[in-house]
Amino acid sequence: MSAISFAGLAAQSADFMFTNATVLTMNEQKAVYEQGTVVVKDDKIIAVGDAELASEYKAQTVMDVAGDIVMPGLINTHTHASMTVFRSLGDDVPDRLHRYIFPLEAKLVARDMVRIGAQLGNVEMVKGGVTTYADMYYFEDEVAKTVDEIGMRAVLGQTVIQFPVADAENAQAGIQYALNFIEQYKDHPRITPAFAPHAPYTNTTETLQEISRLSLEHDVPVMIHLAESAREREVIAERSGGLSPVAYMADIGALNHNLVAAHAIDIDDADIALLKQYDVGVAHNMSANIKSAKGVSPAIDMLAADVRIGLGTDGPMSGNTLSTIDEFNQVAKVHKLVNRDRAAMPPTDVIEMATIGAARALHMEDEIGSLEVGKQADIIVIDTKAPNMVPMYNPYSALVYSAYANNVQHSMVAGELLMKDRQVLTVDENQVRIEAQKFADVVRQSVIESGEEIR
Amino acid sequence: MSAISFAGLAAQSADFMFTNATVLTMNEQKAVYEQGTVVVKDDKIIAVGDAELASEYKAQTVMDVAGDIVMPGLINTHTHASMTVFRSLGDDVPDRLHRYIFPLEAKLVARDMVRIGAQLGNVEMVKGGVTTYADMYYFEDEVAKTVDEIGMRAVLGQTVIQFPVADAENAQAGIQYALNFIEQYKDHPRITPAFAPHAPYTNTTETLQEISRLSLEHDVPVMIHLAESAREREVIAERSGGLSPVAYMADIGALNHNLVAAHAIDIDDADIALLKQYDVGVAHNMSANIKSAKGVSPAIDMLAADVRIGLGTDGPMSGNTLSTIDEFNQVAKVHKLVNRDRAAMPPTDVIEMATIGAARALHMEDEIGSLEVGKQADIIVIDTKAPNMVPMYNPYSALVYSAYANNVQHSMVAGELLMKDRQVLTVDENQVRIEAQKFADVVRQSVIESGEEIR
Repeated sequence: MSAISFAGLAAQSADFMFTNATVLTMNEQKAVYEQGTVVVKDDKIIAVGDAELASEYKAQTVMDVAGDIVMPGLINTHTHASMTVFRSLGDDVPDRLHRYIFPLEAKLVARDMVRIGAQLGNVEMVKGGVTTYADMYYFEDEVAKTVDEIGMRAVLGQTVIQFPVADAENAQAGIQYALNFIEQYKDHPRITPAFAPHAPYTNTTETLQEISRLSLEHDVPVMIHLAESAREREVIAERSGGLSPVAYMADIGALNHNLVAAHAIDIDDADIALLKQYDVGVAHNMSANIKSAKGVSPAIDMLAADVRIGLGTDGPMSGNTLSTIDEFNQVAKVHKLVNRDRAAMPPTDVIEMATIGAARALHMEDEIGSLEVGKQADIIVIDTKAPNMVPMYNPYSALVYSAYANNVQHSMVAGELLMKDRQVLTVDENQVRIEAQKFADVVRQSVIESGEEIR
Repeated sequence: MSAISFAGLAAQSADFMFTNATVLTMNEQKAVYEQGTVVVKDDKIIAVGDAELASEYKAQTVMDVAGDIVMPGLINTHTHASMTVFRSLGDDVPDRLHRYIFPLEAKLVARDMVRIGAQLGNVEMVKGGVTTYADMYYFEDEVAKTVDEIGMRAVLGQTVIQFPVADAENAQAGIQYALNFIEQYKDHPRITPAFAPHAPYTNTTETLQEISRLSLEHDVPVMIHLAESAREREVIAERSGGLSPVAYMADIGALNHNLVAAHAIDIDDADIALLKQYDVGVAHNMSANIKSAKGVSPAIDMLAADVRIGLGTDGPMSGNTLSTIDEFNQVAKVHKLVNRDRAAMPPTDVIEMATIGAARALHMEDEIGSLEVGKQADIIVIDTKAPNMVPMYNPYSALVYSAYANNVQHSMVAGELLMKDRQVLTVDENQVRIEAQKFADVVRQSVIESGEEIR
């Protein structure tokens, strides 16, 4: 009965309805509605279907998008949003990590810097169609406040590392910071607090084991940089008697369904089998990985092995932008190049890794990642009238090969509009920019004092 | 004396002045003015310098850009603008050329299609900061009319190919068409008519020789696809007794300073030496070349050999967008990846290949490509307040790693504003889009009739 529309029947009430849309549901069948309707009530999607569906609902707000693409909000599975204040500084300097990043972080990471950078990153992501992101940094409770304010959804990983850092003098202190943060945010509807051990090579076996145990005890995610470089492989092989980073993590009991591994560049088939076996999520950061000449993660093999994998941008000193739309083109094309196959990594796979695949990578596929009844109303609208998007024969192809991050017109999270007609509604974008530009002067001064150039 | 500003002296008159700009001159010294001024009179740049320069001129229009980047208009060295009407159709289908492109072109290439597609491509390019483009297609006199109307600058190459095509039944007829077109447009201030033999493998030696001779006689450019694939190498080796495509062109006398070679993927050091020796220009189309899994042109080696090389987008069935800004990221990163060197292809080289380098590739460096006194006033302004562009420590790096095509705010060609605040001033953008969308229905019908899917 529910599929039949009765003209005479009283329409159901709803809060918001997108009509006349090219709806990409990203459900199991990848259903597309060419003049589709998406209906929202409270924070959830209550109906998705074709044009006729609209007559069954009476929504407080109806947005006729005139053929534009309506799709699940993008999910950025790996970033360090606060680092926007350092964006582009020292790009391409060979020993940049030691000459720019570490000294800057040692001097400048503090609550203010984390807040200012996260605010800018949030605005950039909302304007680029990202509705959920996974972050790894310091003072994540400051990031949480900014996420709460702008209305996005996020998985926020408090860093644990064996060196003294701004918010913890050692790994134990980092774990304690994370536990407090988890306690504070465990019931937030849009924020998932998490542990973020920096990497296997910057933490001891014991720390990694403790975090794994605590993550199961508190049922929270663990985010880690894993299998990123040849150097990491050497360090871990030495520590473990020849194991790969992934095999080492399995060996010590630190691979489980709570883990999200960023990068996974330097992995083989045995590693991929372990990632699948332990139900680990993977963040695929093409743009950052090729910029640093680290190589190309075998995402195609992971997709074939049914590993949970989604797109990430990495941080703004790596990527350098924070919308996963900026990854689409590069992900689709670089996999073709390295596989010498123009049919490799088709647009549907790319869009899957940006939506429901990314939700799977974060183990949130029951909540977000597709437009389906009962899921959270995290929805974006993409302008299909911009000249770069015209004509549109295949919406997946248009998104992957033609769309710009600023073709995103509107953005909704949990039923609330965060952006309308490219205007961010929940924070003052100019204020955020001005504060970041002001902080950039502090950064410039710090670089000059350190004896390096602004470059 | 000319460097001194006299407060009491009568200011010189000018038409237009950009002030308070981050000016990237792209001159020999790559001078950057942080609060710079660019002064325009008639179609030319009459002064470029720092903030004080502004007091020496009284311009009819003064645009204070509040720190935004003012730079030479981008030059797209290779495209097929009219093919926008086919954009994204059949992307990633392995035998797409024979299943989609050739049948569509056989049925649909006509004056109307060429005009409608070029209009859309022009609007897209203006909005993406391209002020000059090099085109290879059919009915180039139709393209010329659209370029004239929108006010851009272009090198328009009339196709010569040995098969019957819409505007010529054979190569001789194509040459005649080109000669008529050259006669018609040879004195146009912004349009350079040219020959466009499709490729060595689709033309006879005699045709290539005749075009080379005619290009010298009429002093017009020749644009050709060259060294694009292994298949081309085989065909030319068979024809020439083992020569590479570049060596073959040299051998038959078809390499000269009028030639612009698109792609140049499958070349070695000897080929590069020939390109340098004969002063050939090269269009480097990274995005299209990796999408089709053809490989990566050795642009770094060509830059080192001082070959004339600039960026191109290729056509919208290949690239798929037409702003060279979309190339920046991929050019910078993919060369790093394939060379395993994070310092390879720095942002300054990328911006050079998009501006003065591209002008050199088209042999137009005396006229365009940099902001210098006496050059044509082809100027764009890039928004540096968009969140993806904040903060800006290095404008080259921000452009290459962070900018989107739609961060271009204003565009000027030959002293005329073509776009202001992202509004195209010289044509009706909506009308252009609607006409293209209508033509897309004709394309859909044609695909269905041919027994293929819309995909």
